[in-house]
Amino acid sequence: MIPEDKIIEIISKKIYEKTWTPNDVSNFKIGDNQIIFCIDTLVGSTDVPNNMNLRDATRKAAVAVVSDFASKGVEVNIMLFSLCLPEIYTKKDVEQISEGLNDAAKEYSFIILGGDTNQSTDFMITFCGIGLNQNDVINRSEAKPGDIIATTGRYGLHALGLKILLSKEEPKNGEEIEAVQAFLKPVARVKEGAYAISSGSVTSSIDSSDGLLRSLNQLANTSNVKIIIDELPTHESIIESAKKRKIDLDKLVLEGGEEYELIFSVKRKEWPKLKKLFQTKKFSIYKIGKVETGSGVYLVRNDKIVKLEGSGWQHFQK
Amino acid sequence: MIPEDKIIEIISKKIYEKTWTPNDVSNFKIGDNQIIFCIDTLVGSTDVPNNMNLRDATRKAAVAVVSDFASKGVEVNIMLFSLCLPEIYTKKDVEQISEGLNDAAKEYSFIILGGDTNQSTDFMITFCGIGLNQNDVINRSEAKPGDIIATTGRYGLHALGLKILLSKEEPKNGEEIEAVQAFLKPVARVKEGAYAISSGSVTSSIDSSDGLLRSLNQLANTSNVKIIIDELPTHESIIESAKKRKIDLDKLVLEGGEEYELIFSVKRKEWPKLKKLFQTKKFSIYKIGKVETGSGVYLVRNDKIVKLEGSGWQHFQK
Repeated sequence: MIPEDKIIEIISKKIYEKTWTPNDVSNFKIGDNQIIFCIDTLVGSTDVPNNMNLRDATRKAAVAVVSDFASKGVEVNIMLFSLCLPEIYTKKDVEQISEGLNDAAKEYSFIILGGDTNQSTDFMITFCGIGLNQNDVINRSEAKPGDIIATTGRYGLHALGLKILLSKEEPKNGEEIEAVQAFLKPVARVKEGAYAISSGSVTSSIDSSDGLLRSLNQLANTSNVKIIIDELPTHESIIESAKKRKIDLDKLVLEGGEEYELIFSVKRKEWPKLKKLFQTKKFSIYKIGKVETGSGVYLVRNDKIVKLEGSGWQHFQK
Repeated sequence: MIPEDKIIEIISKKIYEKTWTPNDVSNFKIGDNQIIFCIDTLVGSTDVPNNMNLRDATRKAAVAVVSDFASKGVEVNIMLFSLCLPEIYTKKDVEQISEGLNDAAKEYSFIILGGDTNQSTDFMITFCGIGLNQNDVINRSEAKPGDIIATTGRYGLHALGLKILLSKEEPKNGEEIEAVQAFLKPVARVKEGAYAISSGSVTSSIDSSDGLLRSLNQLANTSNVKIIIDELPTHESIIESAKKRKIDLDKLVLEGGEEYELIFSVKRKEWPKLKKLFQTKKFSIYKIGKVETGSGVYLVRNDKIVKLEGSGWQHFQK
């Protein structure tokens, strides 16, 4: 029951260079190029509900890595995978996994260059993405007071989908079916990331897959700033479902996670330009708050400002 | 119960480019450089005996990747890891893992640039190594009839160590203690690989961690040649232990695995030169056989030639 942040702290102290800054991807320079890497594991027992098939689970594991890259405006060129399969898995299971690998590779145009297979008691698939970039990689520690906070999507739908799947009750209407599908087949915001980062308007960037609040906290902590949210972008369509199913909507939106949106801090003066760019390209972008001096993440509601505690999804605090 | 080879076959058919050749590492060109990658996972339930600590297990997982690189004469410059920990793991366990990461990073001079942590029901650590190379990467498919087969070490000691650990009987003498230590703290042949590959005398290269016979079979299959072994290099010191513990010595040597030796096919004319180079550098190298036209792996014993069936360690056929 050690929190994930604590694990990273213990390991970082022991092994990382002191100059190391936590980021969604790692990188190093070679000639004029930056090589970008990111590794991520999907675990059957904690990340895959029983009624999610292996094809979707495998594709989703790849999407998680693609999304980390997208938050830096970089595409994954090459993917390596390592597969751990329980002994009881059949040929059909392996074929499903292959389909999921193929789905992701086609959808996000990466080449799978190598892999490793193992037996284990838990299903697991690790992806290591590799990409190239001509510029320095944007990180999560440069949000500046005065910036505004923007995001590429609305929150809560995917987490509601997961809750419906876990409840084992059938989806009750079109909105709930949409929520389940959103969870099963999430989409990484590759083009949005590329446009936003290359615009030069963005000072910091992170993806939201661990939950909106956790990502905002990471942005605030690593940038040493305060973030004030004045709008929680959610889907009108899920408000009723949340009520019926007695799910706390704020918690769903702030801590639910599972959506692969991008969160940017944007230079205030450049916000109109970025917004227009996204409108032209027909991509969604929402202004949800602002950066101030200080620390922590706050929400303005009914003219009051409340500190948002908690940090969303952590594997070790289920 | 699907064999690992079959899993790779199913996945390869679905996702890999048709030009893909199985190799220990993957690579792509960028400018004048080759970027080399390799991913490998160590699984608690199948790879780590109860009496192996997490520090040694973590170090060993890294050694497996370093050894795959060594077989190509390349050093690991950067390592990424993904960690899956059972819920019951304590702070002390995480500290042990950190020590193991640190041991390997110091010993093999790589930088750990990034990581990921997860919860699972099985302990797992995946390493993804990244390195640079100026030359094309040597593969396992260019062994030619007339070449000789050489290896950097003797076989059976590590696998005996594992058997002693699994037997839960204490090691009975100095030799058995040495065997256990060899299993717990294996060494990758980084310098040997670098000298051999850069000599230009080697036509194909592979590491032996899945077992001598399996590696020889892979070399023979991918190169479309026959390999004839006329000497099985083992340790005099373990012959008695194997007898006492009723362990089949041939099986131990051929299929035991766990040692991270390198196996080379060497141009016959250049063998004396390579042997001399190794002698000068004080590294071991043993001539164990030769390459002929044909297929399969054979052993000459008592003037008879026998085909060696079986293929050594496969995760899925324990």
